[in-house]
Amino acid sequence: MSLHAKLLKQLAPWRNANTWRIAFSGGLDSTVLLHLLAHLAKTDSLPTLSAIHVHHGLQAVADAWPDHCQSVCDALGVPLEVVRVQVQPGASLERAARDARYGAFIAATHANDVLLTAQHRDDQAETLLFRLLRGAGVRGLSGMPGERGLGQGHLLRPLLDVTRAELEAYAAEHQLNWIEDPSNEDRQFSRNYLRHQVFPVLAERWPQAQATMARSAAHLREAQGLLDELAVIDLAEASSRNDFDWLGLPSLELASLAKLSAARQRNALSYWLKTQTRLPDSDHWSGWQDLRDATGDARPIWRLADGELHRASGRIWWLSGAWLRTPPVVGRWADPTLPLVLPDNGLLTLIGQIPADPLQIRYREGGEIMNLPERGHRDLKRLLNESGVPLFARGRLPLLYRGEQLLAVAGLQGLNGCTRDGWNLLWQPPSEDQGLS
Amino acid sequence: MSLHAKLLKQLAPWRNANTWRIAFSGGLDSTVLLHLLAHLAKTDSLPTLSAIHVHHGLQAVADAWPDHCQSVCDALGVPLEVVRVQVQPGASLERAARDARYGAFIAATHANDVLLTAQHRDDQAETLLFRLLRGAGVRGLSGMPGERGLGQGHLLRPLLDVTRAELEAYAAEHQLNWIEDPSNEDRQFSRNYLRHQVFPVLAERWPQAQATMARSAAHLREAQGLLDELAVIDLAEASSRNDFDWLGLPSLELASLAKLSAARQRNALSYWLKTQTRLPDSDHWSGWQDLRDATGDARPIWRLADGELHRASGRIWWLSGAWLRTPPVVGRWADPTLPLVLPDNGLLTLIGQIPADPLQIRYREGGEIMNLPERGHRDLKRLLNESGVPLFARGRLPLLYRGEQLLAVAGLQGLNGCTRDGWNLLWQPPSEDQGLS
Repeated sequence: MSLHAKLLKQLAPWRNANTWRIAFSGGLDSTVLLHLLAHLAKTDSLPTLSAIHVHHGLQAVADAWPDHCQSVCDALGVPLEVVRVQVQPGASLERAARDARYGAFIAATHANDVLLTAQHRDDQAETLLFRLLRGAGVRGLSGMPGERGLGQGHLLRPLLDVTRAELEAYAAEHQLNWIEDPSNEDRQFSRNYLRHQVFPVLAERWPQAQATMARSAAHLREAQGLLDELAVIDLAEASSRNDFDWLGLPSLELASLAKLSAARQRNALSYWLKTQTRLPDSDHWSGWQDLRDATGDARPIWRLADGELHRASGRIWWLSGAWLRTPPVVGRWADPTLPLVLPDNGLLTLIGQIPADPLQIRYREGGEIMNLPERGHRDLKRLLNESGVPLFARGRLPLLYRGEQLLAVAGLQGLNGCTRDGWNLLWQPPSEDQGLS
Repeated sequence: MSLHAKLLKQLAPWRNANTWRIAFSGGLDSTVLLHLLAHLAKTDSLPTLSAIHVHHGLQAVADAWPDHCQSVCDALGVPLEVVRVQVQPGASLERAARDARYGAFIAATHANDVLLTAQHRDDQAETLLFRLLRGAGVRGLSGMPGERGLGQGHLLRPLLDVTRAELEAYAAEHQLNWIEDPSNEDRQFSRNYLRHQVFPVLAERWPQAQATMARSAAHLREAQGLLDELAVIDLAEASSRNDFDWLGLPSLELASLAKLSAARQRNALSYWLKTQTRLPDSDHWSGWQDLRDATGDARPIWRLADGELHRASGRIWWLSGAWLRTPPVVGRWADPTLPLVLPDNGLLTLIGQIPADPLQIRYREGGEIMNLPERGHRDLKRLLNESGVPLFARGRLPLLYRGEQLLAVAGLQGLNGCTRDGWNLLWQPPSEDQGLS
């Protein structure tokens, strides 16, 4: 089957899309994909073709690529959009660049749009072997899907059954020019090493090595889907409602998790945490065991890359951003008819009327006493214990004072206002990303 | 850490076992394991050591191995049991030999016994890569466990963290002699090719290649455990009771399976079927789709290596052995006070008293009429339809005749006897392995 025929077959279900947008880096693979589609469009009635080039600005040499891409697209009569992105440097530049690139793709992909990328079968096999050499698990070893949702549309990889050799032969036949990306040399070196040193040795005895490995990658991807389904089942079980949902924090019921096998706990937690934080590899989960198994008065915390898991009130709670910072002193609430922004601690609103003069917001320091209409003077500590509010939240409950008199504790039913005088405090705790740059 | 220390650490939880029995092939790995343990026993208080050698009788050269093993064991003072097994030739001689070998191990392993095998880390990594080159899925790629149940005791692989090089160095240091097994050359050739051609190339860039790949294998094994847990959840859902449980056939409710994702259906069915039959690889599951999606009067059957899946009465049924053979003609039931063995069709018993003269057992041929006390003459076909008995069972329901009069249909409530005269037929359908050699 010719490359044209393979491509048309893969894309047959997508002929009614609004647009086929090619992710065009200027490298061999996407140059061939672009050329193939531009030529198919002359004989077949395809959706509108366009191309998108993401400029990461990470290396001087790449500054010339938008012009190169523009001239290729001009020659083929395909409109090109060049998107400049800012890469946030972090632990992995490759990952950051990928995130920025896909961010641009998502923004460009509207309803019924299709974005096409040019990964091929050799990529699948090389990635699998490369990840295996890092000791990855099912998720890491899973192959790229041929199709998935992206933004409001879809991402397709129509060349996953095509070999690099086929693409190279096509490029040679049509005398295509493409860019060789010198960036990320380590990764390139590993890739090249696999390509030139390892796979030829494998192919000598197993000529179909890349095809069979790509098949394994597809099996593993399917398996990962099942592991995710299992996680969803287990998390549904652990996502009971609780009295402190109003804190706005992701939390799970510990007992429900703890009765699962250790492997199943890790599977469910990984699924839950992966939208919150980078995860430790499976050899570094002792923090979870400590959190789970701590007894008595321990206040265990599992610190992860982008936040912390706390255990309190029979649940585990995901804390990040402002929740991990001690909110600075607030002081006077000059006009309680206006909501008060609490630095690193959300927003405080007074519902009803209260004599304004001079009100203050403080946080707990210990030793506070509160005078309750029915119960007289009480230790705040005891009142907090009675409420069951998680320990990590106690230090940031806004306390309303007049002079040295503690009038109300925001957030806690029965302590958050005065029924008789008809006012109470409404506290919106910090959202997870408050205060993040 | 020395090999002795590593081994003691791995075996520490098993010091109270009855016996440590070494699976001793005479090859390098098990020779080292035997030697290590025999020497440890001199300084440490270990459970009783013994060895077991399985003689497959598959190649002339192997006839000398029991004597070799005996002399090694004699020199070390370890009692040896040689077990001769008959290998059933089949699709895979390697698999058959393995089955026979583990059958012998199971028989030898009593409560609180431990069987020790000598697989090492290189085996894990080579197996993983070998299976990857065959396009295996999670189950195939899973590493061997370090510990699992075996018979009434346990199987341990205490050398899984040890490299082949360490074992070779030990063998050289202690001038051990061992057998090189020339059998199964193809597999050996693949193994040797990986060992000598592929891994050295990998190790040049990734010196820890085998260790990381063994880690991946362990992750995949854990993932397989989770996939099995998911299968158990899904099968519990589909294992509702039904009116024909008395047929004694494994069956599942189709609607319950069909509402799962296709991948999850395959996962659940694979788990359910793997104790019944060898499974097709994942590219050959169209038979399942046909079975599941057939409509109207279709009687779909999915033929597998060791039996068939039938669809009937809203369920899928696993049929094998006698169930797949047409039971031969029975004829006269000379003495109905004695149970009647029906060739390939179980056992028939008459409960109560019936005039003996001349009773016959037949099977349905079509056109039968039955005279029912309250309802008069009825087509048997209609009566069977009313009963909802699965189609595949109808041709083997034992029919009791006197002359040309159909007296009873075994197995079906209301048709299986005569309430007035106080007798009825009790039919035990064939068990799955009836008539298997």
